[in-house]
Amino acid sequence: MKRNVYISNIPIEEALAAYRKMLSPTPEIETVPVRESLNRVTAAAIKAEVSSPSYHCAAMDGIAVRSVDTFGASERLPKKLTPAQYVYVNTGNPMPKTCDAVIMIEDVVALSEDCVQIIEPAHEWQHVRVVGEDIAQGEMILTSQHRIRPVDLGALISAGISEVPVYGRPRVGILPTGSEIVEHADSIQEGFIIDSNSSVIEGLTIELGALPKRYAPVPDDYELLKAQIIKALSENDILLVNAGSSAGTKDFTSKIIEELGEVMIHGIALKPGKPTILGNVNGKGVIGLPGYPVSAYFAFETFVKPMLETYLGFSNVQKTAQAVLTQRVVSSLKHEELVRVTLGSVNGKIIATPLHRGAGATMSLVKADGIVRIPRHIEGLESGTEVTVDLMRPLQDVMPRIVVIGSHDIIIDDIQDKMPLSSAHVGSMGGIMALKRGECHLAPVHLLDEKTGEYNVAFLQRYFPADEVVLIEGVKRLQGLIVKKGNPKAIERFEDLTRDDVVFVNRQRGSGTRQLLDYQLRQNQIDAETIAGYSRELTTHLGVAVAVASEGIDVGLGVYAAAKAMNLDFIPLGFESYDFAVKKIFLNDERCKRFMKVLESAGFASAVEALGGYVLENPGSIRWNGGTA
Amino acid sequence: MKRNVYISNIPIEEALAAYRKMLSPTPEIETVPVRESLNRVTAAAIKAEVSSPSYHCAAMDGIAVRSVDTFGASERLPKKLTPAQYVYVNTGNPMPKTCDAVIMIEDVVALSEDCVQIIEPAHEWQHVRVVGEDIAQGEMILTSQHRIRPVDLGALISAGISEVPVYGRPRVGILPTGSEIVEHADSIQEGFIIDSNSSVIEGLTIELGALPKRYAPVPDDYELLKAQIIKALSENDILLVNAGSSAGTKDFTSKIIEELGEVMIHGIALKPGKPTILGNVNGKGVIGLPGYPVSAYFAFETFVKPMLETYLGFSNVQKTAQAVLTQRVVSSLKHEELVRVTLGSVNGKIIATPLHRGAGATMSLVKADGIVRIPRHIEGLESGTEVTVDLMRPLQDVMPRIVVIGSHDIIIDDIQDKMPLSSAHVGSMGGIMALKRGECHLAPVHLLDEKTGEYNVAFLQRYFPADEVVLIEGVKRLQGLIVKKGNPKAIERFEDLTRDDVVFVNRQRGSGTRQLLDYQLRQNQIDAETIAGYSRELTTHLGVAVAVASEGIDVGLGVYAAAKAMNLDFIPLGFESYDFAVKKIFLNDERCKRFMKVLESAGFASAVEALGGYVLENPGSIRWNGGTA
Repeated sequence: MKRNVYISNIPIEEALAAYRKMLSPTPEIETVPVRESLNRVTAAAIKAEVSSPSYHCAAMDGIAVRSVDTFGASERLPKKLTPAQYVYVNTGNPMPKTCDAVIMIEDVVALSEDCVQIIEPAHEWQHVRVVGEDIAQGEMILTSQHRIRPVDLGALISAGISEVPVYGRPRVGILPTGSEIVEHADSIQEGFIIDSNSSVIEGLTIELGALPKRYAPVPDDYELLKAQIIKALSENDILLVNAGSSAGTKDFTSKIIEELGEVMIHGIALKPGKPTILGNVNGKGVIGLPGYPVSAYFAFETFVKPMLETYLGFSNVQKTAQAVLTQRVVSSLKHEELVRVTLGSVNGKIIATPLHRGAGATMSLVKADGIVRIPRHIEGLESGTEVTVDLMRPLQDVMPRIVVIGSHDIIIDDIQDKMPLSSAHVGSMGGIMALKRGECHLAPVHLLDEKTGEYNVAFLQRYFPADEVVLIEGVKRLQGLIVKKGNPKAIERFEDLTRDDVVFVNRQRGSGTRQLLDYQLRQNQIDAETIAGYSRELTTHLGVAVAVASEGIDVGLGVYAAAKAMNLDFIPLGFESYDFAVKKIFLNDERCKRFMKVLESAGFASAVEALGGYVLENPGSIRWNGGTA
Repeated sequence: MKRNVYISNIPIEEALAAYRKMLSPTPEIETVPVRESLNRVTAAAIKAEVSSPSYHCAAMDGIAVRSVDTFGASERLPKKLTPAQYVYVNTGNPMPKTCDAVIMIEDVVALSEDCVQIIEPAHEWQHVRVVGEDIAQGEMILTSQHRIRPVDLGALISAGISEVPVYGRPRVGILPTGSEIVEHADSIQEGFIIDSNSSVIEGLTIELGALPKRYAPVPDDYELLKAQIIKALSENDILLVNAGSSAGTKDFTSKIIEELGEVMIHGIALKPGKPTILGNVNGKGVIGLPGYPVSAYFAFETFVKPMLETYLGFSNVQKTAQAVLTQRVVSSLKHEELVRVTLGSVNGKIIATPLHRGAGATMSLVKADGIVRIPRHIEGLESGTEVTVDLMRPLQDVMPRIVVIGSHDIIIDDIQDKMPLSSAHVGSMGGIMALKRGECHLAPVHLLDEKTGEYNVAFLQRYFPADEVVLIEGVKRLQGLIVKKGNPKAIERFEDLTRDDVVFVNRQRGSGTRQLLDYQLRQNQIDAETIAGYSRELTTHLGVAVAVASEGIDVGLGVYAAAKAMNLDFIPLGFESYDFAVKKIFLNDERCKRFMKVLESAGFASAVEALGGYVLENPGSIRWNGGTA
């Protein structure tokens, strides 16, 4: 009986349970030599076949004796032992049957070839390792479902085990589809996409312990794709087709699976990751993954991983941590929503900061430390909520990081290359708010006080009590208009932004750069509504430069370094102070101290010089010590 | 100039620093295709070569339009678009040059082949992914010294990177030596030891990302060993010789290194792990590791790992956690001492329980979750001290475990196979004390109240306030004398233990079994001093049975299951109650609930039946609810 449900919204647990039931995968068990069992998963509890040591043996170099023969020896009354009363032994040698103690070689005086003298009695079993002292025959060495580590190998071998029953490794086919997908970067041109998902999936499959086989991309041709699916199915235990899982005009995957077998589910209540296909061809799973990188990743983690774990015979316990959410997250009632977060440890609290949520944001996966799942039927989570985070990185990796939330500058990348750092780009005001709430160690800010023309200090005085925060000197940076090479549209002043032939790209509200723009527009009495592109907001300087370098956008406001990096022209407007606000209590934190050291370093100075457009005046020093106005 | 220091006590940091200086290893850098770079370590920060997307593209299936053409459309006043005003696009398609918005296919009504109708205006850049939205050209994708993960591959590929500079993988020779060392278990006989260290070292080397080459064991023959060291040095960048590093009569390693090059240090202030050799042959490191498994492991972690990380070009930040020590640890002033600990999370506190400290205790490495380093010149650490633990297992793996400290029984192994559990065998009284101090969830106890002849309840009443703890029913188990098969020495009663021809093996003080023995000895007016072997203490029933099965020991007190497991004879003394004391506040903990479920399960009943010597009476139920006497 075929049950086809197209682009419907099935809850995740329901979909998985039904799919497991349909495929009823059974793990294969194989026996491998213990020396080849590293990272394999035990299919049964392993018990010691022999004891270790398997005979009483000397624990020291020295002489083996009967303890009773040594009683009474003392410094004042040394005791001589005859050749019949002792045997020289090295560490690990079997004990002679009559002996029950070892005297260390350092404590033995050889009087002649035949005779030794001791000055202390040996107590029973002194320096002897008795049978089974380390491992007792029959003792459980490893439980079942245990991934074998290097130290486990030692215990297994010592326990006389030569082969171990482990779960087999399922073969996983990875088949990219789409006429726009190319395998190699050198053939890239507009309208084509390099196949990155297959390598991510391949890596995830390897890490789970399965055996991936990655195929070349197949164009959007029904018969070609069908033939390749049939071939890949014959070579694997489970097949992942990527993409072709949505309802686009050329998404053949679902139709082909239906022709060959059955599509159980098409569309899952998961965001990102919705257009997922769970299919079955002759008992083999065929899973259609969505094309967007983040969607593909989440669909893998949510469906493929649990299915593979069933084939692999073990369930990897989900690694989680509790953390406090730093920002409100709004979610759809219709889907379970997966929010990527970065983690940091601030003042003893683990804090989770949401990252960019687009399904295409590959970089958000690189930056993410974990995932917060917002269940269906919930509108979102308030800032300050304690959440459970599915970890993408070991928790202890997160601890040494300095947490930097606020305005973005390219120098943050250079600092991150020199010390563990996690950053979120929420603009200067966002940074000040994060600092207030205790969600970061440092907030990078560049806020112009319109009255005084000075940067930053006035804002800290406004938002914090006296002596709560100080300002660490960062960099003076050149802001200006970024325009195309050669400035073909002859843009010179802010008035030019309102021209009909000029398209602008903006920075997000709350950023210092946006504030500078709006200030200048007011000064020049320009109506923002008259600027084409004013509503398109990007969150980084480099993002603005890249947009200007592309077709369709002519100008943006940003730093010189970004213009230089993209080989664009630049109309300077002036230097501004990009500094770091930090709470006084963190000044003695090792991470803050290291941060200040990095700013002071010659390596930082030369990296910044290479970027261009910066002036350094004692970076890393305290520019303002937190006094009142 | 040769500097040879034999079996001296050099501090670790000093030894490492001097050795690094002597070898001055420089990491090699190689370039690998990005698709083969999984788990490699970046040798430079990687910046995006192209933006992603590299062109403005549709974020949805639908029609691409100029937003200005759509203004004014509403449900009441739908707008028609002419063929010149729209282009059908699929997700990911490049945007036509004139268009700046996409309308989803669901919101488009096709009136004819030439004409569509819309009922809502499209705002600028709606459903368009602009150039660089995900990755901006020039943006840092990965820092240097980053181990490449599957998700990183996706970002690298999307950023147009085809090759990455990574650190090379040093070749590591692993050469076991010793005439008593055999490679395969089938050739094992008394006096021989299976080579387990080489596989542990091989596994650790693989995990670090280096390339190990394991050689067959070389017997104690100076010339043979020298020839093999020369061969192995020619095939590797660094050579690990195991063992032959102590001052035993046949330890040639040091002499050979000295002949070929120089021995920088022989003997390090580390326990376990002291007899370590750091040598240099023509600029290649030759490290002599001690033979005891635990010493070899620690010498690897302490010296080989940091050296390999220098060759590998990256320093793996030590993963640590803070925990509270549950037991006092005494240490030598002379050495840095490494104490293996198990970890658990009890009542929100991470607690560290020391494991058996012998250098030969392979199983302690399997059971250890981490290492506590006790520096030189410190006599030890008090119970309750906060310590830093070098983690051997991810911290989050520890969290779901139930922590069981107290008396040992073989059934604990079976429970551990059914749920995450960490256990320490410190005897019933030790368990009660651990429970009092809040260091475990459960304490297995079997304590005989000599007045009433009843088990356990009286002790809990004595040590805990009313209503603080309850007793979970465990098993009734048969205790008795374990003797050799056929009982060749005709042991029948406790009086027989004092016979001259009988050697006994004891259990540790504080264990219920020891308590039972001492009670019986008093009852029978037997002086413990007259029992040969009374001073030899083992900590498990299986350990006792294994000792009895070996030569030289005739009898021990223990449970039937242990005698049966080792195919020994058994003289029953009676059933005792082995129960679990638990604090009331933990009864609702998920781990405790799961523990009780396991005890109630049919799987547990059948496992216990297979062991033999147990009677079950509602295991997992509350046997005593904590009332007063």
